[in-house]
Amino acid sequence: MATQGQVITCKAAVAWEPNKPLVIEDVQVAPPQAGEVRIKILFTALCHTDAYTWSGKDPEGLFPCILGHEAAGIVESVGEGVTEVQPGDHVIPCYQAECRECKFCKSGKTNLCGKVRSATGVGVMMNDRKSRFSVNGKSIYHFMGTSTFSQYTVVHDVSVAKIDPKAPLEKVCLLGCGVPTGLGAVWNTAKVEPGSTVAVFGLGTVGLAVAEGAKAAGASRIIGIDIDSNKFERAKNFGVTEFVNPKDHKKPIQQIIVDLTDGGVDYSFECIGNVLVMRAALECCHKGWGTSVIVGVAASGQEISTRPFQLVTGRVWKGTAFGGFKSRSQVPWLVEKYLKKEIKVDEYITHNLTLQEINKAFDLLHEGGCLRCVLAAHEV
Amino acid sequence: MATQGQVITCKAAVAWEPNKPLVIEDVQVAPPQAGEVRIKILFTALCHTDAYTWSGKDPEGLFPCILGHEAAGIVESVGEGVTEVQPGDHVIPCYQAECRECKFCKSGKTNLCGKVRSATGVGVMMNDRKSRFSVNGKSIYHFMGTSTFSQYTVVHDVSVAKIDPKAPLEKVCLLGCGVPTGLGAVWNTAKVEPGSTVAVFGLGTVGLAVAEGAKAAGASRIIGIDIDSNKFERAKNFGVTEFVNPKDHKKPIQQIIVDLTDGGVDYSFECIGNVLVMRAALECCHKGWGTSVIVGVAASGQEISTRPFQLVTGRVWKGTAFGGFKSRSQVPWLVEKYLKKEIKVDEYITHNLTLQEINKAFDLLHEGGCLRCVLAAHEV
Repeated sequence: MATQGQVITCKAAVAWEPNKPLVIEDVQVAPPQAGEVRIKILFTALCHTDAYTWSGKDPEGLFPCILGHEAAGIVESVGEGVTEVQPGDHVIPCYQAECRECKFCKSGKTNLCGKVRSATGVGVMMNDRKSRFSVNGKSIYHFMGTSTFSQYTVVHDVSVAKIDPKAPLEKVCLLGCGVPTGLGAVWNTAKVEPGSTVAVFGLGTVGLAVAEGAKAAGASRIIGIDIDSNKFERAKNFGVTEFVNPKDHKKPIQQIIVDLTDGGVDYSFECIGNVLVMRAALECCHKGWGTSVIVGVAASGQEISTRPFQLVTGRVWKGTAFGGFKSRSQVPWLVEKYLKKEIKVDEYITHNLTLQEINKAFDLLHEGGCLRCVLAAHEV
Repeated sequence: MATQGQVITCKAAVAWEPNKPLVIEDVQVAPPQAGEVRIKILFTALCHTDAYTWSGKDPEGLFPCILGHEAAGIVESVGEGVTEVQPGDHVIPCYQAECRECKFCKSGKTNLCGKVRSATGVGVMMNDRKSRFSVNGKSIYHFMGTSTFSQYTVVHDVSVAKIDPKAPLEKVCLLGCGVPTGLGAVWNTAKVEPGSTVAVFGLGTVGLAVAEGAKAAGASRIIGIDIDSNKFERAKNFGVTEFVNPKDHKKPIQQIIVDLTDGGVDYSFECIGNVLVMRAALECCHKGWGTSVIVGVAASGQEISTRPFQLVTGRVWKGTAFGGFKSRSQVPWLVEKYLKKEIKVDEYITHNLTLQEINKAFDLLHEGGCLRCVLAAHEV
């Protein structure tokens, strides 16, 4: 390719400072170094983690940066030693790497690869601890090892999932974060069995994916809980069988759910990121075996609490990141499941805009009607 | 038997009010009603739960009562409909019932039988919601459905484990609580695998039983943590391979353990009942898979806390009651294991006294050198 080995100048949405509108800039994207892949991003969606870091509330957030971590694209060029993908491959960049070599990957117990974390956590690449992005010579931080709000990005090779080129990138970009997180929380972390009763707190994209995963796992009751009753009608399509709005009740929501289910649910999922809801989700679980999975991401510094008696009497408290999926191995499998119509993706996309309209997309994210807004990166 | 169907007058240690010495009284023990068993208690040990209720700190504690829940004896008589034991059978009364009929027992997921809980929780028997104990006509509450600080007690039939008559009752009385709790926390709740690294917080009877269980499960490192360094020497005999005294360090104990183990332990067990230690036990677990089990019983109203990030990054928080053992089914199996010398029991007995000396035994419980004090109920 003509661009190989060259700096590419392209459009990207730069977050210059917290809580200020992103600015579409001409960004210089350096060529990939050893073990790196440069990707032409075609479609990117927005997720609440982007909004959280953008808001400035994340003490680890670094500015200026290029946000974005739920996307799909095509490999433009690869650095030295990269063998598993080549230019032209269709890929999904993954914020959770999978190196297959570190003790986490080899443990067989977790998807939390540690290979590049020390770099992605501080907005740089492993090779030289520097960024590949700059604007007029000023370095711009990476974000989550993905930075997909750019027409081109550079990621570590251990963070690239090669997918079936038949998959529509404008849809499967969603398999970079929210949908797998919800499905995997059910399938990998909780391991919901047929006939189970399930409570899902928060009916956004992740919560709906939990419902979808629970339905696929054979759950017999899927209780959706949200403070916006308008979300119930849509949630039915994803498997939610009953709806509870905590605002309709005086008692604590955990008590409402315990009463509804003769002692509590078998599995609960917190998909909001609210520590008080995390407690309610644990406490609405059945004594003896109920398992609660924290899926939402709480604001920095906040803590969860409960009486230890809740655990001593048999409840289990867990959490999940990217639904426990091993990214490079399993994102392609999720793409195949989508192509075989075994999982939904299209149904989570409520809005389509262009990268230029990204600030409008952030506004949409806070509206109850919006699940995912997909941005076309190369249409103006 | 001559006593069958009659009220028996015998000696029992009555807790008339919180935090006052127990009084050896002549107690009238009514005959067992339908579904009940009257047991001649031969040996009883003391456990910290007895001391906790005695102290008055348990808001659910009822006085006057007869404490005690770790004992062994011989069935004196049985009430109507009792088929599984008969007079003369050697038994261990179990504070955790097993009815084999309720939804908990049938779930296959928990040992927390709910059959008689509504009565044992408030110090009475199910049949008539009354006590079988009285002193000069004044009713005395039962405790934990066992009340073993008495020469005779009445328990529900679902709370009686029939054991091999060859087993020495002065030893296997310990299989009524502490030792199974520790072993089962490892075998049933955590399911520790060979080669695991384990941290045990608190080296009393339960903590040592955890160490013993972990050694039997093939753990390669068993780190004992206690603020009394004198406990280490003895702990070695139970499988502890390394000792850490938090008082010897300035950093938080979770950080010390993480540093010692290249990232944290695979399994940790809190055997103290201190909510701050419960947090440390969770946070010293390895990212991605570390599992922490709460075994100790915290004081009423106290809460555990942590950052949800601890769980989202793969740690699991659980608890256990009676080590997850199904009492009637598995206590006899533990007795067999003891007879085959596959588990220790004698080694936990540091003191022997008589029921008359029970207040001295309570004092001993708070001394570091004491593990279990066994009281002979019929020697004066």
